[in-house]
Amino acid sequence: MQIDLNSDLGEGLGSWRMGDDEALLGIVTSANVACGFHAGDPPTMRAVTTMAAARGVAVGAHVAYRDLTGFGRRFIDMEPDVLTDEVVYQIGALDGMARRAGHRVTYVKPHGALYNAVVTHEAQAAAVVRAVREYDADLVLVGLPGSVVLRLAEEARLRTAREAFADRAYTPEGQLVPRTRPGAVLHDQELIARRCVAMATGEPVADVNGDPLTVHPDSLCVHGDTPGAVGIARAVRAALEGAGVTLAPFVATV
Amino acid sequence: MQIDLNSDLGEGLGSWRMGDDEALLGIVTSANVACGFHAGDPPTMRAVTTMAAARGVAVGAHVAYRDLTGFGRRFIDMEPDVLTDEVVYQIGALDGMARRAGHRVTYVKPHGALYNAVVTHEAQAAAVVRAVREYDADLVLVGLPGSVVLRLAEEARLRTAREAFADRAYTPEGQLVPRTRPGAVLHDQELIARRCVAMATGEPVADVNGDPLTVHPDSLCVHGDTPGAVGIARAVRAALEGAGVTLAPFVATV
Amino acid sequence: MQIDLNSDLGEGLGSWRMGDDEALLGIVTSANVACGFHAGDPPTMRAVTTMAAARGVAVGAHVAYRDLTGFGRRFIDMEPDVLTDEVVYQIGALDGMARRAGHRVTYVKPHGALYNAVVTHEAQAAAVVRAVREYDADLVLVGLPGSVVLRLAEEARLRTAREAFADRAYTPEGQLVPRTRPGAVLHDQELIARRCVAMATGEPVADVNGDPLTVHPDSLCVHGDTPGAVGIARAVRAALEGAGVTLAPFVATV
Amino acid sequence: MQIDLNSDLGEGLGSWRMGDDEALLGIVTSANVACGFHAGDPPTMRAVTTMAAARGVAVGAHVAYRDLTGFGRRFIDMEPDVLTDEVVYQIGALDGMARRAGHRVTYVKPHGALYNAVVTHEAQAAAVVRAVREYDADLVLVGLPGSVVLRLAEEARLRTAREAFADRAYTPEGQLVPRTRPGAVLHDQELIARRCVAMATGEPVADVNGDPLTVHPDSLCVHGDTPGAVGIARAVRAALEGAGVTLAPFVATV
Repeated sequence: MQIDLNSDLGEGLGSWRMGDDEALLGIVTSANVACGFHAGDPPTMRAVTTMAAARGVAVGAHVAYRDLTGFGRRFIDMEPDVLTDEVVYQIGALDGMARRAGHRVTYVKPHGALYNAVVTHEAQAAAVVRAVREYDADLVLVGLPGSVVLRLAEEARLRTAREAFADRAYTPEGQLVPRTRPGAVLHDQELIARRCVAMATGEPVADVNGDPLTVHPDSLCVHGDTPGAVGIARAVRAALEGAGVTLAPFVATV
Repeated sequence: MQIDLNSDLGEGLGSWRMGDDEALLGIVTSANVACGFHAGDPPTMRAVTTMAAARGVAVGAHVAYRDLTGFGRRFIDMEPDVLTDEVVYQIGALDGMARRAGHRVTYVKPHGALYNAVVTHEAQAAAVVRAVREYDADLVLVGLPGSVVLRLAEEARLRTAREAFADRAYTPEGQLVPRTRPGAVLHDQELIARRCVAMATGEPVADVNGDPLTVHPDSLCVHGDTPGAVGIARAVRAALEGAGVTLAPFVATV
Repeated sequence: MQIDLNSDLGEGLGSWRMGDDEALLGIVTSANVACGFHAGDPPTMRAVTTMAAARGVAVGAHVAYRDLTGFGRRFIDMEPDVLTDEVVYQIGALDGMARRAGHRVTYVKPHGALYNAVVTHEAQAAAVVRAVREYDADLVLVGLPGSVVLRLAEEARLRTAREAFADRAYTPEGQLVPRTRPGAVLHDQELIARRCVAMATGEPVADVNGDPLTVHPDSLCVHGDTPGAVGIARAVRAALEGAGVTLAPFVATV
Repeated sequence: MQIDLNSDLGEGLGSWRMGDDEALLGIVTSANVACGFHAGDPPTMRAVTTMAAARGVAVGAHVAYRDLTGFGRRFIDMEPDVLTDEVVYQIGALDGMARRAGHRVTYVKPHGALYNAVVTHEAQAAAVVRAVREYDADLVLVGLPGSVVLRLAEEARLRTAREAFADRAYTPEGQLVPRTRPGAVLHDQELIARRCVAMATGEPVADVNGDPLTVHPDSLCVHGDTPGAVGIARAVRAALEGAGVTLAPFVATV
């Protein structure tokens, strides 16, 4: 039994900090690194990729809409061709930084509103898939199980990784309960850790109604920017290791 | 006898255009492509690198200070480490775009105020050299003969290319006459073409005082964004070809 | 009979130019001035407001989504409260510039994708109305007849101006034919001028099917950034004057 | 005896926070509010000006170079005319936000590298003075005693306020000891409070050599973004009140 643990890192900008990158890089196996469009100035990108290289943590391009003041959390109705170009730009910029650190980008994960858009938006999903394929067809695309973007990626013969969220409630259909609904986000560290072990070992977890739901993720996402984020991530890792689950990137880092 | 002809291209941004990239790509042998910091959004970068690939024109990263409203023409007193990171970011972003087009970045040329700064500013020159070397030590660094940045690049065993300007007057010491002085910029197409032939064939040109000055450039820079730019570039190319000078990139494009 | 003639001006950014502001300021009676979010750096804003003051042309804040690379032409799904704040910021910035020139902002017109959004998007339309009312309830809000934003503005007791487009075809219902349909944009200078005279004098114009349609605009919008824009604007003005229509801002400029 | 207490506030951007604006607005009498160029998005500007209005705290435009990733801490060699326009833009934007909250901008204080530049840089200092005078000649300009900007402001008949720093060491000449030197920044809360009382009451403080130095500030600057900032600000205020010094803005807020 093996699972990947990913987290959004490098989300500072200049003098502004967000999350504890250093602590999380000691816990996760894959780092989704902001590429300058929603967060992440070049010094931050360098710092995170350098630390990730030293710890054998895989680096993914956390590509986003160009939206610093909105942190990439607002849908932008972009032309697909422009989106493809902007995604290639971001992957290239991060990959340059990673290679300088003796590392490299091995996967791509859309961020925020783009992540949500490509669950259902065919044209934007296709634009992201095209960007990844044209930049480097060996990159893995990370997304939500059942999303349009993963379906299109598979049709394009890209490798994909299905992601589950450690601290989110699921509907009976295996979709995320929207954040606006009560109970959408879990806060109990022990419960979260227990659910992660279940998801990693093929056991069912309780959906939002309490009924059993089986999820088969390649990677578990733990958040880096909430209060208690580091504590939760650490508890998840400890529980997985305690259950005999091997933690490793879903894609070889070299 | 062989010389390179370079020009600053891809200097539009979104809906804004500058220069006639398509025409110039039919004339020059090396394209200095803006990387998004002083100009050049991703769709423009894609368009220029794709056309350059199709025509066998070498692509260089025209790296700049982060300054869209100032077009990179204002000195910014940046910390050298941050400058290194920002230069790597720009090279990586353009290289990603170029590789997607089956091409690649083969050289780096600082733009505008950064170009001028690294003529004399040791710390910023060292920061640029470090960025190039750490990104890819096979890249060529283009600069002004006698500049600090070329000296440091050579000390770091980087390959360099010395550049002369087709339409600029020179001091007796071989420096550019500052733009603020009368006669600093030449406008006579025939005179410019004649001087280019002289520079490419090792003959002296008249300095600002009318005395002979021998320049030994690896590349001649023709401007792309001034009125008549395309006409001048075309005249320079025709004159060089007429004089039996081979036009070719100073660095292999593949 | 009196009508206003408005145009989008000040749409350059730094070294990039768009349209011929100076020529159009000799033709129109109201200038929609970009406020830095989709275009318009402070020097451009100063230049346009200073020229407008000298010519008695009314100045309006051409407020937009924060989107320089997309020129404000892409819908952004912003939180309404943030949109209100961003609109106030833009009006204030332009008003400061105008007051420095002895002038002032007397109206607000949303730009591009925001203009289109507030035709139907209740929450964003309300956000714009709130921004205008809270900044200065004497400002006039310009929009499309029948739009949600004009309805909400009237409910909030703001003054409004209904705008017609000189070079656009209309549906039988008085809506704009989408740009993607053939015949949506008119190019014949004489036809455009004739339609403007009809609209200004209460006569019907032909809708897209050739049937008569009566439009009652307070202002006619002529474009500033297309080839032939200045010629069309001049022809429209000449035709209106020839028909005895007085050209004047829809709102007092002082 | 009366003194003003000012602090840099509103220095967040979108999802990024910096400092505890709410706590400091309960302590200081003047708030230097970031205007979007080095920090401060419109929602942050609205929040701070609204709270300042409610508490009777004066609002100043903390104008800066356009440099979000550098937090305005890097000198930019701007053309003075462009700097004037950018300063007017920032004041206008903040003033619009303040007026919406029933408040208004009553002073201007340059931020970061611009603050330092106008101590000695004649052309940039003149550009800032011109911006303030042309926007509203009743605004007060805050700066370092002995600076070029204050001299030029006085020559232009602007009102000025001389500022001292609560936590900085001074040279025998009354200049700030550069941050790069040991002992430049004081950390002892009690010592800082004692020095503030001395400065406010006309008593000498120890310069960096321990010799007496008399400073006559109109305002004392307490920092908002360092660890312990709120504690220091509170201690300074308590000590001043304990010494019978009245705390009030140096300029009437209405």
